[in-house]
Amino acid sequence: MRDLNETNITDAVLAKVRQSENPRVRQISEALVRHLHAFVRDIEPTQVEWDAAIEFLTRTGQMCGATRQEFVLLSDALGVSMLVDAINHRFPGGATETTVLGPFYVQNAPERDLGDDISNGMQGEPLLIEGSVSRINGAPLVGAIVDTWHADGGGFYDVQNATGQEGLAGRSRFRTDEHGRFWFRSIVPAFYPIPDDGPVGEMLKSQGRHPYRPAHVHFMIGYPGCETLVTHVFLAGDKYLDSDVVFGVKNSLIKSLEFQDVGETARGNLVDQPMKALRYDFILTEERSAVA
Amino acid sequence: MRDLNETNITDAVLAKVRQSENPRVRQISEALVRHLHAFVRDIEPTQVEWDAAIEFLTRTGQMCGATRQEFVLLSDALGVSMLVDAINHRFPGGATETTVLGPFYVQNAPERDLGDDISNGMQGEPLLIEGSVSRINGAPLVGAIVDTWHADGGGFYDVQNATGQEGLAGRSRFRTDEHGRFWFRSIVPAFYPIPDDGPVGEMLKSQGRHPYRPAHVHFMIGYPGCETLVTHVFLAGDKYLDSDVVFGVKNSLIKSLEFQDVGETARGNLVDQPMKALRYDFILTEERSAVA
Repeated sequence: MRDLNETNITDAVLAKVRQSENPRVRQISEALVRHLHAFVRDIEPTQVEWDAAIEFLTRTGQMCGATRQEFVLLSDALGVSMLVDAINHRFPGGATETTVLGPFYVQNAPERDLGDDISNGMQGEPLLIEGSVSRINGAPLVGAIVDTWHADGGGFYDVQNATGQEGLAGRSRFRTDEHGRFWFRSIVPAFYPIPDDGPVGEMLKSQGRHPYRPAHVHFMIGYPGCETLVTHVFLAGDKYLDSDVVFGVKNSLIKSLEFQDVGETARGNLVDQPMKALRYDFILTEERSAVA
Repeated sequence: MRDLNETNITDAVLAKVRQSENPRVRQISEALVRHLHAFVRDIEPTQVEWDAAIEFLTRTGQMCGATRQEFVLLSDALGVSMLVDAINHRFPGGATETTVLGPFYVQNAPERDLGDDISNGMQGEPLLIEGSVSRINGAPLVGAIVDTWHADGGGFYDVQNATGQEGLAGRSRFRTDEHGRFWFRSIVPAFYPIPDDGPVGEMLKSQGRHPYRPAHVHFMIGYPGCETLVTHVFLAGDKYLDSDVVFGVKNSLIKSLEFQDVGETARGNLVDQPMKALRYDFILTEERSAVA
């Protein structure tokens, strides 16, 4: 293994990574080397461009912290996250469609009671969210965990807030009631740019792309024996629905804001002021191991 | 651009990155998306594997600092650095062959006088290094900058040294004399593992690969109007010459250590004790812009 050149180096590297005893590591490593080398052969980077790539990746890693995941943003902005999402959710028809997790999910957000207001000081128009969780056959899922998070009326998530606001906001976990239903109050989220003051923002700019995502509310819904559903509900009419920077919009996930007057809602919940309302009924599929 | 799925997402992302006004950015972005998506389709990562990839890249970036460049190591260990090196050095025959820069180069190392000892306290067997720099036609290059660096007898570079040793060692810049020659003294470097306590070390382990590089001395040699030469001289007989973890060994760059007795060398330099000697004559090619 000496005198490697453009012609023989890829085979030499492949021979090395094939030494892995783990078949999955071997498969991933071989594919990585083949595609990475093919990419390099295609673009023939100069040394200066290679330096720039090393520096880009380094800065991307160093931008990551407790409230920022720049490599997730990179995966999102290159359509990789949605491709991985599609590959992992070849579900039977009838289940709610999936979309990206995004970089702003926080594990173990506080659990609240149904009907609670989760806005916690966030600025924006009051919003009622009502929904249900069921199986494809219509059976309600009682006690399902509904984890939700969204941006504020200015387009910022709580974890991005640099103004010193205490704690989490626009983010909570709920359990569905005995009918598989949940409801809570918050504020209407706005469209927003993904954080674009780092390497991913530079990439988007150089590619002539805007950094915006249409307004949406995130949901991660789990129930034993079902595939955990990671999705958004998008707000109809948003100007970025057709150019989401992370390629995540699906028509089945877009809902219009309705008007809800004071009093009891059609679903039997009570609101004490007129507000906008977003309603979505989620359908979970069986775990794949159970299906197969 | 809604309802993207496995079938249509790659084309949708390609359409976006084609918006770039810069043709080179467009070319690189398109190739990146095509090859990255093809890689993902090939391996069909689970969400857990995607998480692991994000975490691997993040830790790789966060391992980088003033004396460690983990992304360069990753590029080296996947054969990408040597492929980029080959693509950028399609030189005419007769010039010294190139190899990787590696992660331990330090810009603006101190310049020393010919004959100086650069070991600066490094442990190892005394070594004389003698060489020359010329053009392909044999004309000596007077005043060429010879930047050199190497590991110590234990296989560590100065910048890796955590024992508190002051300053740089085994590293210096020289200028060739009126005959295009240079010489200096140091110690015999040992083979060594690339730093393997980080993500790249984990990757090598999972691929069943050792992390070693055969013993070598780095050279970066510059002269106005010539392509800067980045190469090593490898020590003959090293047990890792056939399995260099970064795929960098070329037969033309391997030299045997000679024995040099006290007194004047064949090249006219004076040594005050018997020592090993490494001799190499470097040949630079014209700058490509000048060739083309």
